[in-house]
Amino acid sequence: MAASDQACMARALELARKGIYSTHPNPRVGCVIVRDGQVVGEGWHVRAGEPHAEVHALRQAGELAHGATAYVTLEPCSHHGRTPPCADALVAAGVGRVVAAMQDPNPQVAGRGLKRLADAGIAVESGVLEAEARALNAGFIKRMEQGLPFLRVKLAMSLDGRTAMASGESQWITGPAARSAVQRLRARASVVLTGADTVLTDAARLTVRADELGLDPELTALAVSRPPLRVLIDGRLRVPLDAPFFQAGPALVATASDCSRDAYAGHELLAVPGADGHVDLRKLLQELASRGVNEVLVEAGPRLAGAFAQAGLVDEYQIFIAAKFLGSSARPLLDWPLARMAEAQELNIVEMRAVGDDWRVIAIPRATA
Amino acid sequence: MAASDQACMARALELARKGIYSTHPNPRVGCVIVRDGQVVGEGWHVRAGEPHAEVHALRQAGELAHGATAYVTLEPCSHHGRTPPCADALVAAGVGRVVAAMQDPNPQVAGRGLKRLADAGIAVESGVLEAEARALNAGFIKRMEQGLPFLRVKLAMSLDGRTAMASGESQWITGPAARSAVQRLRARASVVLTGADTVLTDAARLTVRADELGLDPELTALAVSRPPLRVLIDGRLRVPLDAPFFQAGPALVATASDCSRDAYAGHELLAVPGADGHVDLRKLLQELASRGVNEVLVEAGPRLAGAFAQAGLVDEYQIFIAAKFLGSSARPLLDWPLARMAEAQELNIVEMRAVGDDWRVIAIPRATA
Repeated sequence: MAASDQACMARALELARKGIYSTHPNPRVGCVIVRDGQVVGEGWHVRAGEPHAEVHALRQAGELAHGATAYVTLEPCSHHGRTPPCADALVAAGVGRVVAAMQDPNPQVAGRGLKRLADAGIAVESGVLEAEARALNAGFIKRMEQGLPFLRVKLAMSLDGRTAMASGESQWITGPAARSAVQRLRARASVVLTGADTVLTDAARLTVRADELGLDPELTALAVSRPPLRVLIDGRLRVPLDAPFFQAGPALVATASDCSRDAYAGHELLAVPGADGHVDLRKLLQELASRGVNEVLVEAGPRLAGAFAQAGLVDEYQIFIAAKFLGSSARPLLDWPLARMAEAQELNIVEMRAVGDDWRVIAIPRATA
Repeated sequence: MAASDQACMARALELARKGIYSTHPNPRVGCVIVRDGQVVGEGWHVRAGEPHAEVHALRQAGELAHGATAYVTLEPCSHHGRTPPCADALVAAGVGRVVAAMQDPNPQVAGRGLKRLADAGIAVESGVLEAEARALNAGFIKRMEQGLPFLRVKLAMSLDGRTAMASGESQWITGPAARSAVQRLRARASVVLTGADTVLTDAARLTVRADELGLDPELTALAVSRPPLRVLIDGRLRVPLDAPFFQAGPALVATASDCSRDAYAGHELLAVPGADGHVDLRKLLQELASRGVNEVLVEAGPRLAGAFAQAGLVDEYQIFIAAKFLGSSARPLLDWPLARMAEAQELNIVEMRAVGDDWRVIAIPRATA
């Protein structure tokens, strides 16, 4: 029974993952309805404003939902949002049992959906493949629990940990497969964030390009239909409006100066002054979270990426490693001076694998004692 | 037939690998004798002065060698060394066919062993699993072909490419599994080479320690019975004779000054002055090769390791990576200033895998055009 529950939930998670590029600000959710050991309905949430996973699955199941078990990767909602509560829909369909991978991460509503189901006489259970379900929506969960988005920092370095020559020369050193992987990281994010240095030096646009995603047509279409918001941290507004970054579409510019203009030739200006004359990174992230941003991808130079690291705001590093040495005078991975070994940032490396001719390391900062 | 040849040669290579810690200055060689599809004899070379692989295998096969096929990972020798020629032994035993993985790498004698066999009416063949056979004896082959040993550089760094804090603090950052892997690298080398900085700063002894090898008793005994020669590059003889390095046993000290003393409290002094007041690294390696050194393991700081890198003398890097960031003021992997991206050292990464809590990367410098 437990093994079967896990298999059904694994399928629901597989469905949920189809929404990776399109559900934000909503979570990615999948649902499978099983009756007498047969799948009678499947669904996944495609994008905000459209039906939730349970609704799709119930529609497909029709009358067969009666007495069936519904597997959902997130506790069914119990409130009226842009769509009616899914808990009510499950009750109305007469399902006999509901298995959730995890409760709603919003502490204010957690458990209410399951309670509504239990009150209606439905057997409920939660916690099947919970770790996988949490990983899939790490950004949504962090926003609900902490009022901050999940921050992923993408870096590209040589094997000796360098990102550019001392002169600034940083002709892209990794290959097409790594670039395609970065495109998918952008597409799944709610926000792609960069700094003035990167935009000025590399003429970066930070857009999602359909032909570089390496996804099937369905996912490509979804990804392109919900591009991430591009955010530029430019404390002193150094980037000219004719820069490729601005030409590529509307963006949000975070500045350190408190300015009255809140529009900037079609781009939004947001003043988030910090104590040190720089943009207050934590406040900016809180503001983004309040706007429904789940995942932020930082693509910046060593200075800005180092500032996020030093502020303890990084949840995950994705480091693309090119098979070369750039030498000891080249620029560091992160501008982050540490004096003693005891100050070193400990990491959990959760993945290290080949991506084309390059390598990708995924590392999670370990909490310091 | 070809598949069977490969399988028999694979077994011969497996036997040859047992000699990885003990055959130097000789190559690692294995032999399998097969008659009517049955293995009738197996052997491998254990150490210099003892019988070659073919002799062991022929002894085991006895009369059954008559008309059998002998698989050897290296062309049988045709000259009288400390043991009689193996080609003669194979002829005398009446084998019908000899398959070699590769010819003798010494251009002066390559093909002579096979010719002697062919002249005696034996069917001969060469080149089965040649790449594997060459990899196993890369040091012996390089010494024969170029008069230089195979140079392997071991480095330990943080994920951001740093080897120590700016202060010099370099408390060992990788774990027991990585240290054990380094012990095996030492044990397989003919020479472990280091510099004065490492010996002075880390009180390094660079010995092989039986209990840290992580090998079975047979291989441990072999490794310990043939420890590598420890070589210290100390241009100005800065390391005092009471340093742990010298206390750990006899060593060879390479200096830059032309001094008449050729003994140094039981240690050998070798003057290899270079043009720039430093030790001439290439000359030192040539001298070591002339003494029968096949593989050199360099365990040194960024300066000496960087000097070998800049001189183009490195055949392989084994980089142990600890899951942490040491920050942008910490010391580099190699002291090797490069100004332009075009000067970058391109690498082929041939392995990247977990070793305990750490990771190991094996990278081969790509020849520059």
